[in-house]
Amino acid sequence: MTSEKLRFLRACRSQPVDATPVWFMRQAGRYMAEYRELRKTHSILALAKTPELACEVTLQPVRALPIDAAILFADILLVLEPMGLKLRFAPGPTISNPVRTEADIKRLKVKDAAAELDCVFQAVKLIRRETEGKVGLIGFAGAPFTVASYMIEGGHSDHYKLTKAMMTDRPDLWDALMKKVRVVTAEYLEAQVKAGAQAVQLFDSWIGVLSPDQYRRHVRPHSKWILERLSKTDVPVISFGTDTNGFLEDFASAGGSVIGVDWRIDMDVARRRIGKKAVQGNLDPILLFSGKKALKAAVKDIIDRNGGRSGHIFNLGHGILPTTPVDTVKMVADWVHEFSRK
Amino acid sequence: MTSEKLRFLRACRSQPVDATPVWFMRQAGRYMAEYRELRKTHSILALAKTPELACEVTLQPVRALPIDAAILFADILLVLEPMGLKLRFAPGPTISNPVRTEADIKRLKVKDAAAELDCVFQAVKLIRRETEGKVGLIGFAGAPFTVASYMIEGGHSDHYKLTKAMMTDRPDLWDALMKKVRVVTAEYLEAQVKAGAQAVQLFDSWIGVLSPDQYRRHVRPHSKWILERLSKTDVPVISFGTDTNGFLEDFASAGGSVIGVDWRIDMDVARRRIGKKAVQGNLDPILLFSGKKALKAAVKDIIDRNGGRSGHIFNLGHGILPTTPVDTVKMVADWVHEFSRK
Repeated sequence: MTSEKLRFLRACRSQPVDATPVWFMRQAGRYMAEYRELRKTHSILALAKTPELACEVTLQPVRALPIDAAILFADILLVLEPMGLKLRFAPGPTISNPVRTEADIKRLKVKDAAAELDCVFQAVKLIRRETEGKVGLIGFAGAPFTVASYMIEGGHSDHYKLTKAMMTDRPDLWDALMKKVRVVTAEYLEAQVKAGAQAVQLFDSWIGVLSPDQYRRHVRPHSKWILERLSKTDVPVISFGTDTNGFLEDFASAGGSVIGVDWRIDMDVARRRIGKKAVQGNLDPILLFSGKKALKAAVKDIIDRNGGRSGHIFNLGHGILPTTPVDTVKMVADWVHEFSRK
Repeated sequence: MTSEKLRFLRACRSQPVDATPVWFMRQAGRYMAEYRELRKTHSILALAKTPELACEVTLQPVRALPIDAAILFADILLVLEPMGLKLRFAPGPTISNPVRTEADIKRLKVKDAAAELDCVFQAVKLIRRETEGKVGLIGFAGAPFTVASYMIEGGHSDHYKLTKAMMTDRPDLWDALMKKVRVVTAEYLEAQVKAGAQAVQLFDSWIGVLSPDQYRRHVRPHSKWILERLSKTDVPVISFGTDTNGFLEDFASAGGSVIGVDWRIDMDVARRRIGKKAVQGNLDPILLFSGKKALKAAVKDIIDRNGGRSGHIFNLGHGILPTTPVDTVKMVADWVHEFSRK
C-alpha cells in the first residue's frame, strides 16, 4: 500500500477512510512485557538514543496491536541536553541546572542543537523502513510551554509557580526562552520529517494549567510560530493539549491540521468548536481498566458523536497508564475499526 | 447593617451592590501566621472540632483582610467519621478503612450521622454571633463525587482509578454509595443553615477529572438531589467545581444560585455559559505570587470581563496556597472593591 492510501494519513488530511484509524499515546511503554524486558537492561534515555533500540521499542505495539500508526519512541525532553541542560530520570525527569535567570537563558544553545539529536533521526529512518506501506510513522516533540515548564521547574510541578512567575513578571525573559525553545523544536521536527516521519505531533501536555489569558498572551504566539513553520513541510501536524477547553478555539486556530483533545470534552462538541480541522481523541485512559461492557459503550459513544465525519483519529485523551492490560488495548483498537467501518 | 444589606449576600442573589464582594477559598489557613501558631499545638481535626478554636480560625482572615464573607473553618472530610470511616491527616487525608465493596457501603452509617457533627454547628453559632451584620457567613460541605472519591481511594489520587472503576463497572454500588453520601451531606448543610450559616458552598474540587458523560450519568443526579433539597432553605447555595469547562452548562443547571469556576475560563465566557445565575471566581491562585503590576492587571481583567453585571462574587479559582503573602491577599481584596465600585 502506498503511503497516500494509509488511513491514518488520509484521516489527518480529513479525507474519507474505510474505518477510523487508531493509535494510542504512549503505546510503546511499560504496560507491554516486551518493553519492561528491555528496560531491565537499558534506561529510558539509552532506549531513546540508540537507534536500533528505539526502533525495536517503537515497533513492539505495532506487532502486538491492530493500530494504524507507529510513533517514534523518544521523550519530549531530549532537546534539553543539546541545549545545555543536564537531564536524568529518577524516575521522573530531573534537570539539575534548571533555567531561572537571564544568564541561564543566555547560556542555552540553539545553533546546531537539534542536529545533535542525530540518533533520533537515525531511529526514524530505521523505523520507516519497517513501517513503510503498513502504518503511518509519527514523529514528535514537546510544545514550547510544556518543555519550558520542565526547564524552569527542574522536573514535574504541581502548581507551575516558577514558570508562571517568569511568564507573568518577566515576560521579556519568558519570551527569550520561548524563542530559543521554538527554534530548536521546529528544527528538530523538520529533521524528523526529513528522516521519514510522515506526520508530527506537538505535545502540550500541561498547557491546561493556564488561564485563557495566560495561554493567548504568553504561549500561543510561540506555538503558532512552530506550527506555521511546520505547515511548510508536506506532513500533517497534530497539535495536542490536555485540558484546553477554556481556550480550544484559540488553541485550534494556532495551527496544526489535527487537534488532539483529552477526555474532558464530548467529541461532537470538540468537532464543533475545532471547526474544519481533523480531531484526535478522546477516550479516558482509565477506562482501559474497566469491564468490557462499559468500555465498549465509551468507545462507541466517541465514534457515534463523531457522526461519520471525515478527519477523526481515535486515540486516548492522554497516555496509556503503565499497568493497562494489553488485551484491552487490542480490543479497543478492534472496536474502533469495527464500529466505524463504512 | 442587617444581613439583607451585606453585599456578599446581595451578590449571591444577583442583586445590585455598591462594589463586588470578595472572599478567598482557604482564606483561613497556613499562609497566616496566626493560623500557623495555633497549628503548633492543635491538629487540623482538633481545630475543626473544637467550636471556640474553629471560630477563632474562621475569624482570623476576617480581622486581617477587607473581605466580605467568613467561611466556617472545617474540612470536607469531617462527614467521614460519623459515617464510620477512620480519618487522619498524615499530612494529606488518609482513610484506613476505605470503601470498596458492597459490604463496605452497607456498613456506612447515614441515620443521625450528620447530627454527630454538633461541634460544627456550635462553631457556626459562635461565628455568626461575631460576624453578624459585618460579613456573610458561609457553611460548606464536599460534593458527593469528591467525598466519595476520598472514601474509595483512601486519600489523594492521581487518576481516580478505583473511583472510576466503581462508577463504570458497578454503577449499582456507586449509586448506593452516592445516595448515602448525599443524604448525610444535605442534612449536614441544612443543620449548618439552621445554626446560622447565611450561605453554603458545595465543593466539587476534583470533578474535573471526569468526562462530560461520566459527570452527567454518574454524578449530576446526586449533586442535583442535594442542590434541589438545599434550594428549600432560604440561603444562597454556591456550587463550586474546578475544571468544569467540558460540562459547565450541565454543572450550572444541576442547581445552586451561584456557580463557582476556576481560572481556566474567561469570566465573560463563564457568565455567558452559566446564564442567569451568579458566578464566583476566578483568579489563578498562583498569581498571588506575582508582582503588583501583573496581578493588578489580572484582577482588573476579571472585573472588566464581568462587565458591571450583578451577581459576581470575586474569589480565586481554587484555594490560597500555603506560602501566599498575606499583604498580597489584602491588596487583591482592596483592588476588587476599588475597581468595581459604583
